Amino acid sequence: MPVKYFLIIGLFVYCASGCNSSNTSNNTATSDSGATTSVASSTGDPLPSWNDGATKKSITDYVSDVTKEGSPDFIQVADRIATFDNDGTLWSEQPAYFQLFYALDEVRAMAPKHPEWKTKQPFKAVLDNNMGELMKQGMKGLMQIVAASHAGMTTAQFDSTVKQWIDTAKNPVKQRLYKELVFQPMIELVKYLQANQFKVFIVSGGGIEFMRAWAEDVYGIPKDQIIGSTIKAKFDYNNGNPTITKLPELDFNDDKEGKPVAIQKYIGRKPVFAAGNSDGDLQMLQWTASSTLKNFELYVHHTDSTREWAYDRQGHIGVLDKGLDEATAKKWAIADMKNDWKVIYPFEK
Amino acid sequence: MPVKYFLIIGLFVYCASGCNSSNTSNNTATSDSGATTSVASSTGDPLPSWNDGATKKSITDYVSDVTKEGSPDFIQVADRIATFDNDGTLWSEQPAYFQLFYALDEVRAMAPKHPEWKTKQPFKAVLDNNMGELMKQGMKGLMQIVAASHAGMTTAQFDSTVKQWIDTAKNPVKQRLYKELVFQPMIELVKYLQANQFKVFIVSGGGIEFMRAWAEDVYGIPKDQIIGSTIKAKFDYNNGNPTITKLPELDFNDDKEGKPVAIQKYIGRKPVFAAGNSDGDLQMLQWTASSTLKNFELYVHHTDSTREWAYDRQGHIGVLDKGLDEATAKKWAIADMKNDWKVIYPFEK
Repeated sequence: MPVKYFLIIGLFVYCASGCNSSNTSNNTATSDSGATTSVASSTGDPLPSWNDGATKKSITDYVSDVTKEGSPDFIQVADRIATFDNDGTLWSEQPAYFQLFYALDEVRAMAPKHPEWKTKQPFKAVLDNNMGELMKQGMKGLMQIVAASHAGMTTAQFDSTVKQWIDTAKNPVKQRLYKELVFQPMIELVKYLQANQFKVFIVSGGGIEFMRAWAEDVYGIPKDQIIGSTIKAKFDYNNGNPTITKLPELDFNDDKEGKPVAIQKYIGRKPVFAAGNSDGDLQMLQWTASSTLKNFELYVHHTDSTREWAYDRQGHIGVLDKGLDEATAKKWAIADMKNDWKVIYPFEK
Repeated sequence: MPVKYFLIIGLFVYCASGCNSSNTSNNTATSDSGATTSVASSTGDPLPSWNDGATKKSITDYVSDVTKEGSPDFIQVADRIATFDNDGTLWSEQPAYFQLFYALDEVRAMAPKHPEWKTKQPFKAVLDNNMGELMKQGMKGLMQIVAASHAGMTTAQFDSTVKQWIDTAKNPVKQRLYKELVFQPMIELVKYLQANQFKVFIVSGGGIEFMRAWAEDVYGIPKDQIIGSTIKAKFDYNNGNPTITKLPELDFNDDKEGKPVAIQKYIGRKPVFAAGNSDGDLQMLQWTASSTLKNFELYVHHTDSTREWAYDRQGHIGVLDKGLDEATAKKWAIADMKNDWKVIYPFEK
C-alpha cells in the first residue's frame, strides 16, 4: 500500500478524536478556484511571501551563487536538480495525511455499489462513522480500505476520481479545499528555482498517481517529475482498448531511506537542493548534502498554531526530531513558518 | 536481474558459436571520439540521414500537423511525450545485447580480486573463455555473472565502471566502439522531436543505470528521461558519506507488458509517439496507439545485412514477428533500414 506506517498510526491517533473528513462532492461546489500558482511580484522580489531575513537571504544567495557564470560555485544546468517533499512541505498534512481522507471518502462514495459493506468490517465502521470500531480493525482493516480505494480500477479511472475529489473535498479543520492548503511561499520557491533552470521534482511518501492527478496544475511541476510511493500495476491489451489496472500490492515505499533510492531510480542524479519537513525527509537531505557541488538543505518547521499547525518533535504525523537536531548541527536552513512566512496559503494574499 | 529472459537465451545462442567480446580497456585507446550527436544539415532538412520517401514524409507530416497552432490535431506541449526503445532501436543489438558483453568483460576485469573464480563456475568458464561450459551452467550461472557485474557495488562505482567500458570496449563483429554503433537517423529523429518540444524518453529492457552512464551524452536525452529495468538498491548513511548500493534482486523488468506499466510509473502520461524494433516493444506501441490524441507508431526493421544486420521474425534476439503483422495491419510506420536510411552509423557520414 502506498502509505507510510506512521501515516497509518497518524490516522488512528486522529481517528481517536473523531475521524470525520468533509467531502463536499454532494454539496454545492465552492466558488473558490483553489490554489493559485501564479506569483505576481511588483517589486521584482522572487519570494514575495517570505519575510526578509536570514532564511530568505540564504536561499537567494545560494541561487545567485550557483547560477552565476564564472562563480567558483557555478552549477551547470543539467546538475540543477531540486527535490521537494510534498506532505507538510508543499501543503499541510493535518489533522491527518490528506490522501487518507481520500481513502475514507472513496469508501463512502463506493458504498452504493457494495451493499455487502453495510455489514462487513472494516467498511461498516467507515460507513457508520464509527471510528472506535475502525481502530479495532487495526492495520489489516486499514489496508482493506486503502486497497478498495486505490486498487482494482484502471489508472484512468483513478485519475478521474481523484480529480473530482480534489476539486470538491474540504479539510475538516480548516473547512477549505485541500488544494487550497498549499504553501504560497513554497510555490514561489519552486517557481524561483524553475526560473533559474533548476529541474524541480516532488519526492514524497504519498501515492504517485494520487499526486499526479492534481499536483501538476497546482504546483506547476510536470507529472514525470512527481515521484511517490507506488503500488503494482498490470497492462491488459483488452481487445485493442488497452488498460493499466492498479493492483493491491506495494511496489515501493518512498519514505526515509526510500527517498534517496527513489531519487537514484527516477532521476539518476544527486540533487543540489532539497526541502522537507520531517524525519522522513532526513535521508533525502543527507543524500543532497553529500553532493560535491554546492548544495542547499531546507527544513520547513511547523511553528504557526494559528495560521497552520504547530508541531515538531512529538506527535502522530510529520515528526521532526532527529532532523531538527541535524539541521541545527549542520546549519541547514530552517523555514520558521510563523516568522519567515508573510502568508501561508494563497487565499491569505 | 535487469535482463530479459530472451536476452539470456540470446546470449546462449550467440555463445554457442563462440562468445568473445572485445574489451579494449587494456589496449591503446582508440582515437575515435565515439558517436556524435550533432546533426548538421545545410539544407534545413531535420532528418538528413533519411532517404526521401513515405516513411520520412509520414514522420515530418505528423510532427508538422500536431505542432501547428490551429491544427485540429494540435497537441499541447505537455502532452508531447515520445518514447523510444534502446536496443535495436537507437543502437545495434547484435550479436548479443551489448550489456551482456559488459557483464562478461566485467567478470574478466574483476577476476584478479577473485582468485577463487579460477576454479569456481560459472566464473571459471568465462575466464577460460569456455562458452560450452558456460552454457552448461544454465540460467543460474548466468544470473551469478550478472549479479557479480551489476550488484554489490555503489551506484557511483557502477557508473564509473560503465563509463570506462563504454569509452573503450568494442563490438566483436564490427570492431567498433559500442557507442559508435548508434543509429544516426534515429538520433536525428530524437533531436527533431525535441526541437518540436516533444519530451523524449528511452523505455528499454536494458538496465537503467547501465544506460544512464553514457546515453545522456550520446543521445542527448536527460538521465531522468531514461527508463529501464531496475534491480533493488539500499541507502546507507555511512557516517556522513552516504551511499546507495546495488542489490542482486530484480526490481522491475521493463519489457513487453512492463513497458506501458513503466511509462505510467515514470512518466504518468500516455505517449503520442513511440518507436521500437521488436515484439518486446509491441505493448508500448499499442498503448501509444490508444491515445485520444493523434499518435505515431514506428518500427525499425533490421533489413540491412551489409551495413548492420538483417533479422526479424526468427532469431535469438530482437524478434519482430507479431509486431510486424500488427504494424502492417494498422499501417504503423516501418523504417526499412536498408532503403529508408542513407547512413546507419554516424561514422559513415
